[in-house]
Amino acid sequence: MIDRLMDKIDKMKNPTVVGLDPLYDMIPEKIKSEMLERYGKTPKAVSEMFVEFNKGLIDSFYDIVPAVKPQIAMYEKYGVDGINAYIETIKYAKEKNMIVIGDIKRGDIASTAEAYASHLEGVEIEGEMFDPWNTDAVTLNPYMGFDAIEPFIKPCNERDKGMFILVKTSNPTSVQIQDLESPMGDIDLKHIFTLERTPRVYQYVAKLVNEWGKLAMGKSGYSKVGAVLGATLKHTFYSDDVIRKEMRRLMPNTFFLIPGYGAQGAGAKDIKDFFDKDGRGCIVNSSRGIIAAYKNNSKYSDDNFGEAAREAALAMQVDLKI
Amino acid sequence: MIDRLMDKIDKMKNPTVVGLDPLYDMIPEKIKSEMLERYGKTPKAVSEMFVEFNKGLIDSFYDIVPAVKPQIAMYEKYGVDGINAYIETIKYAKEKNMIVIGDIKRGDIASTAEAYASHLEGVEIEGEMFDPWNTDAVTLNPYMGFDAIEPFIKPCNERDKGMFILVKTSNPTSVQIQDLESPMGDIDLKHIFTLERTPRVYQYVAKLVNEWGKLAMGKSGYSKVGAVLGATLKHTFYSDDVIRKEMRRLMPNTFFLIPGYGAQGAGAKDIKDFFDKDGRGCIVNSSRGIIAAYKNNSKYSDDNFGEAAREAALAMQVDLKI
Repeated sequence: MIDRLMDKIDKMKNPTVVGLDPLYDMIPEKIKSEMLERYGKTPKAVSEMFVEFNKGLIDSFYDIVPAVKPQIAMYEKYGVDGINAYIETIKYAKEKNMIVIGDIKRGDIASTAEAYASHLEGVEIEGEMFDPWNTDAVTLNPYMGFDAIEPFIKPCNERDKGMFILVKTSNPTSVQIQDLESPMGDIDLKHIFTLERTPRVYQYVAKLVNEWGKLAMGKSGYSKVGAVLGATLKHTFYSDDVIRKEMRRLMPNTFFLIPGYGAQGAGAKDIKDFFDKDGRGCIVNSSRGIIAAYKNNSKYSDDNFGEAAREAALAMQVDLKI
Repeated sequence: MIDRLMDKIDKMKNPTVVGLDPLYDMIPEKIKSEMLERYGKTPKAVSEMFVEFNKGLIDSFYDIVPAVKPQIAMYEKYGVDGINAYIETIKYAKEKNMIVIGDIKRGDIASTAEAYASHLEGVEIEGEMFDPWNTDAVTLNPYMGFDAIEPFIKPCNERDKGMFILVKTSNPTSVQIQDLESPMGDIDLKHIFTLERTPRVYQYVAKLVNEWGKLAMGKSGYSKVGAVLGATLKHTFYSDDVIRKEMRRLMPNTFFLIPGYGAQGAGAKDIKDFFDKDGRGCIVNSSRGIIAAYKNNSKYSDDNFGEAAREAALAMQVDLKI
């Protein structure tokens, strides 16, 4: 997956992933009224709106953007019908040869973690295989340690799948746990850290993710076990620049998935230190800034929300200029 | 929700929650063959098996057990059909007046966290309310801090819902993050800790959870913001007893959801220190030990898996003797 992703990024010269995170208010009126008429004021109607909207978006940029990242919460909100829209969206994106990262942030242990691994692995029923989710990669939460990650390693190696583990997020309260100071206690990482100050929890997590990554290396030199790192790291006790360089140094073989570009306020210069010396090693997510671009530009309307998305995606490519 | 839960526990004299975490291999042959015949080797068939199995289980103990905790991963494994079984299970348990804790362990931020809060809050579509999940409480992951918790506070207060936040889990690799040493850095909790050794990350999380809990207090003196604490805490750097007492002291108003009883090896004496001086403040989960009890007792067979579950639930009640 990581090699396929990097190939696509290289070919398209575009390290962008579009977050397909639809909100009801983003849906063009035309699609909205059509589905309300057909299905009434129901979760089914919203589900069909999301699928229609996403298909239009994917059609508009699948030739210039390597990957999409549907945020499952936006679909889960509408129950079974919503989940159906999530799955239909994945199917359509894969038909268009896009890489699909399911933003599910799951994290659990033992047989539960194995059950969640179905997002990458599918499920066997009496000898027959089914792939109800069929994502190329998922995001995961590390709070429970490697037990929550391990079942996902096998599909990485056997089915060319991938994962991105939360390391440091950009939200204000991420500091409450991720930035707790942690000296060299029972886990000896002293040789790793060059910073003068006491390391923080997320730096240990970074180190763990890089270690876990060795279990599922791609041919590219990057692992199928990636990391999620917020584009804006202002909510830390270091300056952003220092942290970004440190993160790349702590995780030399880890591909970074970087949310927070655009709508959340980060620009290309904010994230350049995350890239390796060859300008690789990252994929940058933009959601609202692309999918709802038609709302912020009077040139566009309901009828051409796809064109607006394409223009925004092209502008982002130029900004990131790989 | 917390008051309703405590009332039910008091009335039934039973602080037990049954984990409805079906695995394919747990399904009685009779149900299995019926559904395979009706729906073929499909996720739909497994979904129907789970619903049938769960209904039989609920029927067998709803008068003696106050709550069930379906683990969504077990259902999610089978895609949309599985999710449907999860929802049908919740519906049925609520018809039987059971409290339902959705074990979803979600954790995300901003509009995404708001979307996940639909598990408690339902969703509005053009002025009409829908409640696709309709659980009484959910489990949450704290790695992203309060931003991941906040949207769930409102339904706690306005719709009498609840949540249980992961604090310390009992799996071996929980130590990798939860047990990182953390001295009194930027967050001053020095007055809280009596232990001689440096506090661990999960102790800070405990303190945070207790603080967050003040935003949604029940009338009972316990908060609607609870904590998940593993029954077996052997994977820590302290002895279990010390930790349990410390956890209760750090979170005096926090109700504990305790997995790990039975199949995972913990008994009643292992968890007694989690309870408050009145023998309240906890609900203990058992999954396999109850729902698959018929497999471990030659007295029982496919035809009476419910009776086996009831017997196991009664034995657990005696063991926990509130």
